[in-house]
Amino acid sequence: MSGKRGTSRIGVGLIGFGTIGTGVVKVLRENAPVIEQRLGAELRLVRIADLDLETDRGVELSDIRFDADASGLIADPEVQIVIELIGGYDVARRFILEALAAGKHVVTANKALLALHGRELFGAAEAAGLDIAFEAAVGGGIPVLRSLREGLAANRIERVLGILNGTTNYVLTEMERTGEDFDVVLKRAQDLGYAEADPTFDVDGIDAAHKLALLTTMAFGAELTFEDIPTEGIRGLRPIDFELATEFGYRIKLLGIARSHRSADGEERIEVGVQPTMVPESSLLAKVDGAMNAIEVRGNAVGPTLYYGAGAGEMPTASAVVADLMEIAREIVRGGRGRVAPLSYQPRFIEAKSFVTDAERHGRALLRLIVRDEAGTLGRIATLLGESGIAIESIVRRGQGEAGPVSIVVLTRSASEEAFQKATEGLSALPEVLETPRRIRIEEEG
Amino acid sequence: MSGKRGTSRIGVGLIGFGTIGTGVVKVLRENAPVIEQRLGAELRLVRIADLDLETDRGVELSDIRFDADASGLIADPEVQIVIELIGGYDVARRFILEALAAGKHVVTANKALLALHGRELFGAAEAAGLDIAFEAAVGGGIPVLRSLREGLAANRIERVLGILNGTTNYVLTEMERTGEDFDVVLKRAQDLGYAEADPTFDVDGIDAAHKLALLTTMAFGAELTFEDIPTEGIRGLRPIDFELATEFGYRIKLLGIARSHRSADGEERIEVGVQPTMVPESSLLAKVDGAMNAIEVRGNAVGPTLYYGAGAGEMPTASAVVADLMEIAREIVRGGRGRVAPLSYQPRFIEAKSFVTDAERHGRALLRLIVRDEAGTLGRIATLLGESGIAIESIVRRGQGEAGPVSIVVLTRSASEEAFQKATEGLSALPEVLETPRRIRIEEEG
Repeated sequence: MSGKRGTSRIGVGLIGFGTIGTGVVKVLRENAPVIEQRLGAELRLVRIADLDLETDRGVELSDIRFDADASGLIADPEVQIVIELIGGYDVARRFILEALAAGKHVVTANKALLALHGRELFGAAEAAGLDIAFEAAVGGGIPVLRSLREGLAANRIERVLGILNGTTNYVLTEMERTGEDFDVVLKRAQDLGYAEADPTFDVDGIDAAHKLALLTTMAFGAELTFEDIPTEGIRGLRPIDFELATEFGYRIKLLGIARSHRSADGEERIEVGVQPTMVPESSLLAKVDGAMNAIEVRGNAVGPTLYYGAGAGEMPTASAVVADLMEIAREIVRGGRGRVAPLSYQPRFIEAKSFVTDAERHGRALLRLIVRDEAGTLGRIATLLGESGIAIESIVRRGQGEAGPVSIVVLTRSASEEAFQKATEGLSALPEVLETPRRIRIEEEG
Repeated sequence: MSGKRGTSRIGVGLIGFGTIGTGVVKVLRENAPVIEQRLGAELRLVRIADLDLETDRGVELSDIRFDADASGLIADPEVQIVIELIGGYDVARRFILEALAAGKHVVTANKALLALHGRELFGAAEAAGLDIAFEAAVGGGIPVLRSLREGLAANRIERVLGILNGTTNYVLTEMERTGEDFDVVLKRAQDLGYAEADPTFDVDGIDAAHKLALLTTMAFGAELTFEDIPTEGIRGLRPIDFELATEFGYRIKLLGIARSHRSADGEERIEVGVQPTMVPESSLLAKVDGAMNAIEVRGNAVGPTLYYGAGAGEMPTASAVVADLMEIAREIVRGGRGRVAPLSYQPRFIEAKSFVTDAERHGRALLRLIVRDEAGTLGRIATLLGESGIAIESIVRRGQGEAGPVSIVVLTRSASEEAFQKATEGLSALPEVLETPRRIRIEEEG
């Protein structure tokens, strides 16, 4: 297809006209000149489908057909690339498969869908000779998936570790700054639009686990879904945790971590998890505040690298979606597809890998207990930790006392996951311990 | 060409077998399995050329032809991609042109050459239907050029700002940490191998300016060479500068900055420069220590993003070189080339842009003067600054006094480059001012 000045014109259809979809329209309009100067072709949004035809999105829609007919959009011969931005599982999955069946390339930001049904969708694209691009699914506008897939492609990846969810990072930053309770800060985040009315996906770490599943597959060629990822959210963190973290020289971040362990015989085992983690104050990750994201990728040749930026939001996410459109458009112009393996490894090399066992997984941690203030409590806790094989670096009592509940906070030496679980069980059984002890892992080289 | 298991095999020739070249051999050997699993093809180093045939590089060279015959390497039909790692201008330029004339793609890390002769070389590649890849030229192993060219391609770039030279960042970090003089720290950096025997390229900001020239062209489509970039190195910084910077809440970094200014009529003007700069202690850039690099790229959709990693060194730089080999190999396998414009914009859109004038360039700064300690000096300096149109935020006298020279340090409000130059002239003419005053710019949103 030919546009002005003899450049090619690539037709784009958008399904899902919410926040990100609106951002995509804005970027395509406002940045059209620079996009064309780089691409050497024109990206033309020809059609939008959404059930909500009423809301004024504040963007100019002349020359764009807008209706509720997603299937019509997919079938439209003017549409060469379909953007899926409706989110969720069933309908989004159906539209993507429909688009591939109709011979259309797909761009999506849907990490939940890819983390659950990625295998089916990438397989369908491969079979159809089409591309699925998904840079916006992890780290919003940060080009971290491209970096992992291409810029660091010469490396054995040793570790991927990051702040993958802006909502939780905002809540943690605010809890630390104000000393307020989780519920208070979450409510404010909801009022400000940083958190959803139902915050489960974010605060329970599910969104971060979806993203980590994609990162883990791309880093190690490890086949896994997000259900394989031990996930712990930020509910239940208390002001005292932040206070003590600061005193010990750390900050608390919700980290997704995937690490490769190699045994002497060369077998690779993967350690993976999402959990609140203390990172040293002096680390770059400790400086990532508010709704920002940052992902550290460590390769055996390049060493540590870090990618920082807005992990969500209308325009940053749209930046990544349109970058994907440009990538696919380049291929369409050249008559190509499938340039790079979408999950970084050629599909035949993506395979299930062993996970490390709890006995092999080691680290330091901060343990916080809420206890009745009784004589001998601190001693009983210390003894029980010792019996579980956990050495103590420091142990601190905080709170009013006078028979009311107090906090006891323990900074441990390195111990195995197994030892920590055993200790947690033992501590929970002590009559003076009033809540399940909370453990916050420490990542030394944050 | 066909290798084992029916995968393609791409022949690579390496010219220049120094530190980085050795790293490339190591990465290709050690990471061969993962490279092939991602690429779906085999990268095979078939030939190396270097004048030094004696030094033991500590790498296995069986199956690799190694001699001093670079032209023979270029002409070798087994070689499909030529890596140029000899550095310098004339010979490197000649080999690259020779390789292109012989129909070979080129990978280089030579920022000096590209900053000076980029136009000729990219033109020759375009005319020959071949690729030149150069990720290693900026930021070592950090995939920042790819990010600018592809990941952020949908953005109007507003600013690129970065710590682009590891040697100077090491010296600055050490001067701050130890309070020692420049010469002492430089000597130690040389002893440790962090600085060259002739450190001019690094400490005078020339290397950073070479890299900034490439970044500026790629960010804004601005045709310029490094000679267009006002460049100030780190010689002449004194312990007192670091002391005062810390007191005021800043750290001193050698930054390359390129910024786009848009007038009301939409005309774009570029501000560009390399100079020691104070960044707020709380910024991510302030945390980039030692020989590490970081580049911030701000786009109109994505907002600020940052890329961090090792900016030099054997293995990190080799990581970028091999990523480039993989990128070109993908194209060879598919029979393609020229997928992305190497300088991010299609060549016809790269054009000379106006630079901002000194009257338009504004900012705060720290001014440091070495003066004879006389009554009235501080008042005369303050008066002269006021007459030059520079408002003072604070002014501090430091040093022993008792007729010996003392330092006077001024933290200014925002003023124009023109005002600062006028003030510097005026201050230099005062009899009690013993050295040309040193100005360190302040970049608020580091």
